[in-house]
Amino acid sequence: MAFSVTPPAKPLLDVLSGARRVPPPVWMMRQAGRYLPEYRAVREKAGGFLDLCFTPELAAEVTLQPIRRFGFDAAIIFSDILVVPHALGRAVRFEAGEGPRLDPLDTAEQIAALPTRADAATFAPVYEALRLTRAALDPAVTLLGFCGAPWTVATYMVAGHGTPDQAPARMFAYREPQAFAALIDRLTETSIDYLAAQLQAGADAVQIFDTWAGVLPPREFARWCAAPVRRIVEGVRAKVPGAKIIGFPRGVGALLGDFVERTGVDAVSIDWAAEPAFVRERVQTRVAVQGNLDPLALIAGGDALDRAVDDVLENFGTGRLIFNLGHGIQPQTPIAHVERMLRRVRG
Amino acid sequence: MAFSVTPPAKPLLDVLSGARRVPPPVWMMRQAGRYLPEYRAVREKAGGFLDLCFTPELAAEVTLQPIRRFGFDAAIIFSDILVVPHALGRAVRFEAGEGPRLDPLDTAEQIAALPTRADAATFAPVYEALRLTRAALDPAVTLLGFCGAPWTVATYMVAGHGTPDQAPARMFAYREPQAFAALIDRLTETSIDYLAAQLQAGADAVQIFDTWAGVLPPREFARWCAAPVRRIVEGVRAKVPGAKIIGFPRGVGALLGDFVERTGVDAVSIDWAAEPAFVRERVQTRVAVQGNLDPLALIAGGDALDRAVDDVLENFGTGRLIFNLGHGIQPQTPIAHVERMLRRVRG
Repeated sequence: MAFSVTPPAKPLLDVLSGARRVPPPVWMMRQAGRYLPEYRAVREKAGGFLDLCFTPELAAEVTLQPIRRFGFDAAIIFSDILVVPHALGRAVRFEAGEGPRLDPLDTAEQIAALPTRADAATFAPVYEALRLTRAALDPAVTLLGFCGAPWTVATYMVAGHGTPDQAPARMFAYREPQAFAALIDRLTETSIDYLAAQLQAGADAVQIFDTWAGVLPPREFARWCAAPVRRIVEGVRAKVPGAKIIGFPRGVGALLGDFVERTGVDAVSIDWAAEPAFVRERVQTRVAVQGNLDPLALIAGGDALDRAVDDVLENFGTGRLIFNLGHGIQPQTPIAHVERMLRRVRG
Repeated sequence: MAFSVTPPAKPLLDVLSGARRVPPPVWMMRQAGRYLPEYRAVREKAGGFLDLCFTPELAAEVTLQPIRRFGFDAAIIFSDILVVPHALGRAVRFEAGEGPRLDPLDTAEQIAALPTRADAATFAPVYEALRLTRAALDPAVTLLGFCGAPWTVATYMVAGHGTPDQAPARMFAYREPQAFAALIDRLTETSIDYLAAQLQAGADAVQIFDTWAGVLPPREFARWCAAPVRRIVEGVRAKVPGAKIIGFPRGVGALLGDFVERTGVDAVSIDWAAEPAFVRERVQTRVAVQGNLDPLALIAGGDALDRAVDDVLENFGTGRLIFNLGHGIQPQTPIAHVERMLRRVRG
């Protein structure tokens, strides 16, 4: 008698596919990070930050650490959004105590000189890390790949570093929209290939981080954020049919409804300042919602943490929810607070 | 025969009172500022920044400068939101090339030790500057007073300086909500007295700047932003019946509807990233809208500026609109671009 093997359920992937789960699946942005002593130990022996990203065994190891410790429902591959400019020939340096540094890219000539195709060798260790992670991972745990959205990656490329308001990229886009469009196009095409290959290497779903989507007026948001993400979603699905994709247009407020309609993502990650009624009515009726605990409440702990966790569950638990933070976990977060959060979410 | 003298219409005040004006009245946040050579000339001879704020003749002079040059529909008294902590005994220092500095206020004991009443002598020059400005101002021009919202002022007091994400005040509020509430209360009470006295000294309306409202989760937004602003609105109107009040909860996205309902303001100033349909439906049906040109579009000039001006007019010109920027004008803005903006707004 023939029998079929049912693959084990993945709660997070189920939510992306339309199911509601109680309790909700849970993971944390930047969960492989400096708040974990076992991460700091690997980080020290890895050399530079990019060495850690580009050494598959080490990247897989730190990706798995928070799963072993906390039993999260998703592992997200350890990497950085700036590997894409790196693969486009823009050297990225991570210096201790500072954010990332690149040579500023702020002329039409420099953008025209970018290579047509990203350097495949740059990405190869990321794909290998995904394969290693998938092989070691409990089948019930969803493995996530990711990239930065073209707009957010471009803000770093243009300025050469992080800025509070992304004025350099915003100004460049106002002054030289055609050149900026060429940069966004190059990043969009590279991101399609990169995310599709991550899925082919073992990622179950991917997330597109648009950390700086919230600084743009609606016209510019539509052009530089929503349209490129839509192209990525369509391009990835053309290569990997049915690919599950989470968008994270941080800080866009009421433009979130627009983002969902325009991009076709399966879920949106929301920041901690999102308005719950708006999200329930305009977003969660269409896609799954991921978020949105304030990382500072997680540092604070105690009653403030409990109340903040309850707010997330009450605000969004009636629909499709993936419990997460509203932004990355911070290095000074006590591990006991993460444990407390998990007990409260899982009941 | 007796005859009544009709006071001249003030287009901006009319909009606050329920009228729609075409073209809309226009002014710019931070319009008395370093982009103007005549401002820089006064600033140089004034000594420190606070000396300029607290010398009535000079404060009135720089308040009037942009009205003379551009014929704006409103003058906003030249001052700073940190005069309130100054009047509560917290020395505020403005050092060249840096933002403001205060001694951090981050214990319950320090907050309990704040004086019950602000030092009236600190505010007296602001009231005198308002009287001088009003006397010199075209009666058709609306004179605005202002203060910072308690939350935003508290973020500077707790941290001692500006921060990108207001983490110090947010964390203090999570960890010591009662002490933080005492600080917010003190600021709220002081702001009521301060705004009412500004109106009595000649201001036609007042604006409450909550620059950092957008960093808070909904529960904290309701407690630390919306509730104190409501108390200020009610307290000011108890002292000055019918007082017209503009709120500016910057960056709150879809919480803007909530803000309008909770606070009772007559208008809201909106940042450049606000979603137009949401604002039209949830905000402009109830109150006037002020905004929201991206200050970077004003620096960029040319087609980018024209299109950005047209977007504001198209997005909000069908209702009650006060044309303004989405945030303060920046020092490097060319004066010719301001003139171009005005021609386009006024047709």
